[in-house]
Amino acid sequence: MLENYSIHTDLALEDKERFESDNVEISGVSVEEVYNHEKEIQITTVKILTENGAKIMRKPVGTYITMEAPNMAVPDDEYQMEIAEELAMYLKEVLNLGKKDYTALVVGLGNRDVTPDALGPHVIEELRVTRHIIREYGKYAMDEKEAHMVSAIAPGVMAQTGMETSEIVKGIVSEIKPDFVIAIDALAARNTKRLNRTIQIADTGINPGSGVGNHRQGITKETLGIPVIAIGVPTVVDAATIVRDTMESMMSTLDTTDKYEAINKLIAPHLYGMFVTPKDIDETIARLGTLVSEALNLLFTKEISEAESSEENSSKGAQDCIDK
Amino acid sequence: MLENYSIHTDLALEDKERFESDNVEISGVSVEEVYNHEKEIQITTVKILTENGAKIMRKPVGTYITMEAPNMAVPDDEYQMEIAEELAMYLKEVLNLGKKDYTALVVGLGNRDVTPDALGPHVIEELRVTRHIIREYGKYAMDEKEAHMVSAIAPGVMAQTGMETSEIVKGIVSEIKPDFVIAIDALAARNTKRLNRTIQIADTGINPGSGVGNHRQGITKETLGIPVIAIGVPTVVDAATIVRDTMESMMSTLDTTDKYEAINKLIAPHLYGMFVTPKDIDETIARLGTLVSEALNLLFTKEISEAESSEENSSKGAQDCIDK
Amino acid sequence: MLENYSIHTDLALEDKERFESDNVEISGVSVEEVYNHEKEIQITTVKILTENGAKIMRKPVGTYITMEAPNMAVPDDEYQMEIAEELAMYLKEVLNLGKKDYTALVVGLGNRDVTPDALGPHVIEELRVTRHIIREYGKYAMDEKEAHMVSAIAPGVMAQTGMETSEIVKGIVSEIKPDFVIAIDALAARNTKRLNRTIQIADTGINPGSGVGNHRQGITKETLGIPVIAIGVPTVVDAATIVRDTMESMMSTLDTTDKYEAINKLIAPHLYGMFVTPKDIDETIARLGTLVSEALNLLFTKEISEAESSEENSSKGAQDCIDK
Amino acid sequence: MLENYSIHTDLALEDKERFESDNVEISGVSVEEVYNHEKEIQITTVKILTENGAKIMRKPVGTYITMEAPNMAVPDDEYQMEIAEELAMYLKEVLNLGKKDYTALVVGLGNRDVTPDALGPHVIEELRVTRHIIREYGKYAMDEKEAHMVSAIAPGVMAQTGMETSEIVKGIVSEIKPDFVIAIDALAARNTKRLNRTIQIADTGINPGSGVGNHRQGITKETLGIPVIAIGVPTVVDAATIVRDTMESMMSTLDTTDKYEAINKLIAPHLYGMFVTPKDIDETIARLGTLVSEALNLLFTKEISEAESSEENSSKGAQDCIDK
Repeated sequence: MLENYSIHTDLALEDKERFESDNVEISGVSVEEVYNHEKEIQITTVKILTENGAKIMRKPVGTYITMEAPNMAVPDDEYQMEIAEELAMYLKEVLNLGKKDYTALVVGLGNRDVTPDALGPHVIEELRVTRHIIREYGKYAMDEKEAHMVSAIAPGVMAQTGMETSEIVKGIVSEIKPDFVIAIDALAARNTKRLNRTIQIADTGINPGSGVGNHRQGITKETLGIPVIAIGVPTVVDAATIVRDTMESMMSTLDTTDKYEAINKLIAPHLYGMFVTPKDIDETIARLGTLVSEALNLLFTKEISEAESSEENSSKGAQDCIDK
Repeated sequence: MLENYSIHTDLALEDKERFESDNVEISGVSVEEVYNHEKEIQITTVKILTENGAKIMRKPVGTYITMEAPNMAVPDDEYQMEIAEELAMYLKEVLNLGKKDYTALVVGLGNRDVTPDALGPHVIEELRVTRHIIREYGKYAMDEKEAHMVSAIAPGVMAQTGMETSEIVKGIVSEIKPDFVIAIDALAARNTKRLNRTIQIADTGINPGSGVGNHRQGITKETLGIPVIAIGVPTVVDAATIVRDTMESMMSTLDTTDKYEAINKLIAPHLYGMFVTPKDIDETIARLGTLVSEALNLLFTKEISEAESSEENSSKGAQDCIDK
Repeated sequence: MLENYSIHTDLALEDKERFESDNVEISGVSVEEVYNHEKEIQITTVKILTENGAKIMRKPVGTYITMEAPNMAVPDDEYQMEIAEELAMYLKEVLNLGKKDYTALVVGLGNRDVTPDALGPHVIEELRVTRHIIREYGKYAMDEKEAHMVSAIAPGVMAQTGMETSEIVKGIVSEIKPDFVIAIDALAARNTKRLNRTIQIADTGINPGSGVGNHRQGITKETLGIPVIAIGVPTVVDAATIVRDTMESMMSTLDTTDKYEAINKLIAPHLYGMFVTPKDIDETIARLGTLVSEALNLLFTKEISEAESSEENSSKGAQDCIDK
Repeated sequence: MLENYSIHTDLALEDKERFESDNVEISGVSVEEVYNHEKEIQITTVKILTENGAKIMRKPVGTYITMEAPNMAVPDDEYQMEIAEELAMYLKEVLNLGKKDYTALVVGLGNRDVTPDALGPHVIEELRVTRHIIREYGKYAMDEKEAHMVSAIAPGVMAQTGMETSEIVKGIVSEIKPDFVIAIDALAARNTKRLNRTIQIADTGINPGSGVGNHRQGITKETLGIPVIAIGVPTVVDAATIVRDTMESMMSTLDTTDKYEAINKLIAPHLYGMFVTPKDIDETIARLGTLVSEALNLLFTKEISEAESSEENSSKGAQDCIDK
């Protein structure tokens, strides 16, 4: 029954938090937290290991890495480059790319005309694509370190195209045959305090119902036949969620099921299809869009090499590892 | 005390509704409602006549005409042109323009990069400006009916310019010396059901705290020395308002002051600076932006002539006049 | 030899004109001109019938209909709607659609960030797509006349995506399986006087080297397996062409081959990769984009019915038919 | 007579070049060239010292600094930051700012909807404005080094506003009372090889006829009463200029006046009002827009301090100074 009254979040981190008050260990789910003191980034890795875990978490089996930094979107280009480097490193780890050349397709999901949904198209705009150059002139036309073939598209949303984004991506993948897809999307969080300071990497791709635009079909390894890494940034909270959350704290004495029923009756139907977002969302989208595109440019062009890895190791010395 | 916990709305119509349940006649405020059956438009004219009325209504003395049409933003170009004609007629009435030539300055307030705040810039984009042509070639260069000098600007918001919009407008007015200003702005409503179906015309201009971008200084006859007509379309609701509204209905037994205090404690501080808007706000802004610019193009170029006026009279035969 | 020094044009009309001075009848090419007095539109239908004709015209075998109207882009919404109706009629004729329901894919080629190349993306923005609605709710959810499934995409250009547009379209077609593709593109004309007043319909699709963005692979019936209708509007002239044209008239006494060689030596290499376009290209793109999208909206939703057809017949009475 | 057939350029550098072939010393004009080997930037400082010099150069008395770097617009963020630093240094020198706090108004001229004219609006978008923050919270709210009050506006072009840009700027200046204005504009060069690799700083402001949009009134110290520094980047060449230039080299034997007359007869009137620009102008505008905004952000926020100055001195050691 609870399912019907569920509060939607695209963040595995927030799904996990639902159970925290009860201090419950969820079977089939592992959580690891790391704090990078130097860069002031909290990294939480949620692994959903079993179908039972997936059911409780309402997300597919897979790995969800969340980077949280309170100052992620403040105007400080250098700090954003630091986070971009960190993001590139985690992406490299999740993708588990070898030394060989590869072809990547980056998909910028969302609607460029609705500010909090425009993250994906914004990232594509600043991404360096190389596939056409390498196909024309060979990889030696590029700086040695940029031998990967990068292609990208911002396909628009269903109200603009009449097509599911998954249909468009599937068609392009069948033609281009990339080695993997990276999909960027704006997400809905449950809590406004997550907005503009959180990035989630998921190796499960894009699943139905996720994202601001609410995809109806998945963009996943199952549908495309190749790995799909999703990079998501929460930019909105569902309007109904905000009301529900506040009311819950008022009704603490009621039985849970009664409570949800009472609350749902009170929420105006007008609220569905509405979202909550900050007034300065334009600046946030611009900054986080640049951050993510820089991370991808790093991932695709520079060897995040031994030098950097060793530096990373030393910086890991400054981290607190708290296994839960 | 109530003031501190006030629920903000830019619509005089909604201020009036606060008192409706009590069936109170507000001293110094007159309300007239007219329903246009043919075009399915509800017209409510709220006149704030005295300073006492202004205090209760929390808006300056003046006339506020609200046009409400449930299908205002549905994709039907012909219907939108009908509403545009109606809007042009009311604007003409409020401006009380004689036969003589005039210079108009249209100001499109708001941030083009935040979708629900982009109404003003969108209107300016589709407006026909003529001042430079008439100044260069004389009014006989224009079709006879277009002899008015129309100028326009979308100045951007303070976070983009470092200036109050009122400063910019004041400077331009002192240089251009128009006969009046028409200011277009996206508004905050109290109730989500007003969004995307309501247009407010106010002869009081733009006042501090109004609009999505929350102006700090007014753009009014007092500050500019010439009449300022504001055209506002509600596109957002403050996030805190939505929560507060829902909770109020839950707490009906509490005393009013206690209630407001309890509620304000519960509202997360994160909610301030956030707004609620529909997911398809891009389409709404595009359609209502075109509607308002068409109304202005009609107002400035065509004589909304005797033929049309008499037609209007007959259509008024189809209206229910309910004086309150 | 002449081939090497050819002056590029995307308009079959202009290819034909090369031979006019010589009063040559080109074997394998038929030309028909019609002037619509009422709407002030010149219609030229060039049919390339044989491979020999194709070689001389440097365009594939097929039908090229050119609509020319000197006032096509002046600010007059009503006149633009009249041209849109005419365009819709010719599109219907070329597509030869029966009564049955169909699925259309409209592709807006070009780069939205380069004004004269932004026609295609602009058209897609104003197009009404329906495929997703009909798939969700059935065709009876739509007004009876709108039962066709329309989908659309503006895929961007190779410098943005790293992919040939033809690759993207081919992939989407294989997934969506439309009955036909309509591709919109900005074209290069040879003569600046064609700009902003000409629309070309071609049943040969998009061929390598055409369009402002210079496609390298075709989007044609051969590559996609379904009919491809191209709608093109010339918005630029190659910079080298303008220089060459002016110089030719100066060098009238020289032998043709010598002349071309002399001219080509003089043209600065910097001119290649440059184009010539009018300063007010933003207004033109906005108006002609709306014109083309309105024509498509008419084509897909309204029966351009018997009533209109008979009206067309009578208007044809006002046309001069000059068969050549 | 020559005046009538003049080839327009906004670059003082190119005006000077007209006389170079004749090896003429122009009275009232001094030219100094410096090459920065390390950064591969050619700096040419043209000083027009007398009214006679102004007449010959067709530009007002003042200082024109031109920075040329062949790789200015190639995709290399680090190199662009180096040029931005250099630009900031020259701006500081021209502005001759003391240690005290000041208020700056940056004006981004041009039309954001016409790609090669969109440089100014692009710069404003990425500029950090601070005036509103300092006015609200005092200068101690800012990092100590950012105590200057920066305001900015992209007013649009006359076809959009019906107003001369100079009218708008004059009005705003009278209200805001800045200490100086910096105006950014896209320029017309005479030679395509200057495009996308040249920045001109002029202490004479914006003069009638300059810029892609061809201002009719000046934005200068005379009209505003405060210093106006213009930063211009050539992004187009007039279409007629390109034709004329090529033809001139063909007609070397004719007398000058005859030649110009012959050429002017040949140039199609259609060419006036047209410009030539590269196909990848979108990328150039994006990169050079960022470069100029970064230079301004440096100028306004960081002390381009002793440390940097001394570094500059040493780098000047790597320069060749060629006084002419």
